[in-house]
Amino acid sequence: MQTALEAAILGPRGANPLVGSVLVDAHGRILATGHHRGAGTYHAERDCLTRALAAGVTDFSSTTLYTTLEPCTHYGRQPACTDLISDAGVRTVLVGARDPSPNGGGVEVLRTRGTEVVDGILREQCEKLNHRWNEAAGQQRIFVTVHLAQSIDARIAAADGTSQWITSETSREHTHMIRQRVDAILVGTNTVRTDDPRLTARDERGALTPAQPLRAVMGLSDVPEKAQLKQGRPEGEGWIHLRTRDPLKALKDLATTQHNGHPVKHVLVEGGQSVLSAFFAADLVDEIFLYTAPLILGSGRSSLADLGVTTLTEARRYTLDVADGGPTTIMDNDVCIHLQPEPKGAR
Amino acid sequence: MQTALEAAILGPRGANPLVGSVLVDAHGRILATGHHRGAGTYHAERDCLTRALAAGVTDFSSTTLYTTLEPCTHYGRQPACTDLISDAGVRTVLVGARDPSPNGGGVEVLRTRGTEVVDGILREQCEKLNHRWNEAAGQQRIFVTVHLAQSIDARIAAADGTSQWITSETSREHTHMIRQRVDAILVGTNTVRTDDPRLTARDERGALTPAQPLRAVMGLSDVPEKAQLKQGRPEGEGWIHLRTRDPLKALKDLATTQHNGHPVKHVLVEGGQSVLSAFFAADLVDEIFLYTAPLILGSGRSSLADLGVTTLTEARRYTLDVADGGPTTIMDNDVCIHLQPEPKGAR
Repeated sequence: MQTALEAAILGPRGANPLVGSVLVDAHGRILATGHHRGAGTYHAERDCLTRALAAGVTDFSSTTLYTTLEPCTHYGRQPACTDLISDAGVRTVLVGARDPSPNGGGVEVLRTRGTEVVDGILREQCEKLNHRWNEAAGQQRIFVTVHLAQSIDARIAAADGTSQWITSETSREHTHMIRQRVDAILVGTNTVRTDDPRLTARDERGALTPAQPLRAVMGLSDVPEKAQLKQGRPEGEGWIHLRTRDPLKALKDLATTQHNGHPVKHVLVEGGQSVLSAFFAADLVDEIFLYTAPLILGSGRSSLADLGVTTLTEARRYTLDVADGGPTTIMDNDVCIHLQPEPKGAR
Repeated sequence: MQTALEAAILGPRGANPLVGSVLVDAHGRILATGHHRGAGTYHAERDCLTRALAAGVTDFSSTTLYTTLEPCTHYGRQPACTDLISDAGVRTVLVGARDPSPNGGGVEVLRTRGTEVVDGILREQCEKLNHRWNEAAGQQRIFVTVHLAQSIDARIAAADGTSQWITSETSREHTHMIRQRVDAILVGTNTVRTDDPRLTARDERGALTPAQPLRAVMGLSDVPEKAQLKQGRPEGEGWIHLRTRDPLKALKDLATTQHNGHPVKHVLVEGGQSVLSAFFAADLVDEIFLYTAPLILGSGRSSLADLGVTTLTEARRYTLDVADGGPTTIMDNDVCIHLQPEPKGAR
């Protein structure tokens, strides 16, 4: 299960939880490992079984599948993992954490079909792996990734408003990679007025990627007629305006919005100061990519404003995230720190 | 010489430049490598020759010594490297950069003694290695390391002034390690009034280290009678008050101060906001250890204030420093980023 956990953290956080799977033979030898790579891709169990097939495994009747999360029972963008496991004929399934979402119940389904299932292997670690995803699922809200790109002194623009570019090209390419994996990008009306971003996802060659995320603007002010993110189209065609300052309301509105044929389940909040501060103040940030560019501005707009924290013990606390490339990545001259909220009760 | 450069960057920056040396035999096989580990320790050449002796080398008459910096001619805390090289009987010395300081001239000294010397091997890289140290030496000023320990939003205290502790224990231990290697620690009068720091250097067990750095306070206000850094002693006994707001004046005053039997050549500037901002504004920061604690305060005191930068192109720019442990180090839950100024003309 430790190996399955190590596989799981290779994947990205988002609409789906991190999951890793390992298939072993009757002697405990590893036949294949697999992990989930984000919404729309193979679940960890399918990834693992597919790799086992590719490695020449044909008879699964004496194999055991370790999986960090209960196999799903739901046929969505991917077939139900319980069916794949049954069809392959895996003898035993060892499960880490149970799935609290409507996709759960795989343990019972498999047992009904006669598969031996042992539940709760390294349960605590397997649950902790997705502690924040579980929390978001429990609140029935979409998963929130935040992009913070700032100078050493946490500024996002100089005194005269210049901000292109504080971060390096590699950092910006990384942001475009994150944009490709989310369903929607959210910014405030003020950011639209001052920066007029396009909010497109581009590949390394600068070309638009096929599935563009929904461009969402949040705030009470109007979105300027000529805003680039509109691409000259009416609201609802690739972009929407969420007329609220309440981040939870914004998330609820996004959750009921269909885009590219499915509901929005993962949003990247890019800025600016007011929107980011509102999400942090409401504890609605599930993942942070913090890009620090090694320059000092001394004045200009700060990335964050008052959150209502008055003393150190009230600070919003995060922890280094080992998933998806690890806690620190050097991007040209910038350093990207990958963070997630501290698990509840961690201190 | 590339190997010598790789050895050099293992050392710490400070009063002395980074230097690496490699001794090879007549067939170009490496017999030993060495590097300098900071003021008061063996120079790279001596470190290398000592290791060669320890490895059983007795006859140096067919050896070649690569060294990234011209061997010194000066008998200070360490014997002159030119003498050590001559005494060992090294046949050829290949030098990277020349030493612009009064310790230079080793190339000529060795040649006079009949040693074959080739100068300028990978000169540009060897000079760049200590570009900022060279600049400080050219300005005849002491080397400045800065400690910046802050939250994600670049705050050093919450709204109510609480600041102990924003960073992790491992980060604070690292700071104590840096304190051990400098000659003096500098803070502003305001920091003394608000935080009343002891400014001592302690080892991992919390015990005071034998050679304590000079505790220097900068600013026009008086230092409170009961300030802990005074340790109940009169000025001049372990602490001094530099009655200026001008960082260059402060450095000059420090340079003429004797402490632990030698002049101050390396200072750690720890804060607060005004002192740090003055050093950054005057471009008098040679090295930065930036500790980011993964928490958000939203309000409270910022680490830095206005530097007179009004637009992005005027920003003070730094670059990741690969020396002394590399550009990023995880310290518990904090990330320490090691930076140095961009070389002049880098953009």
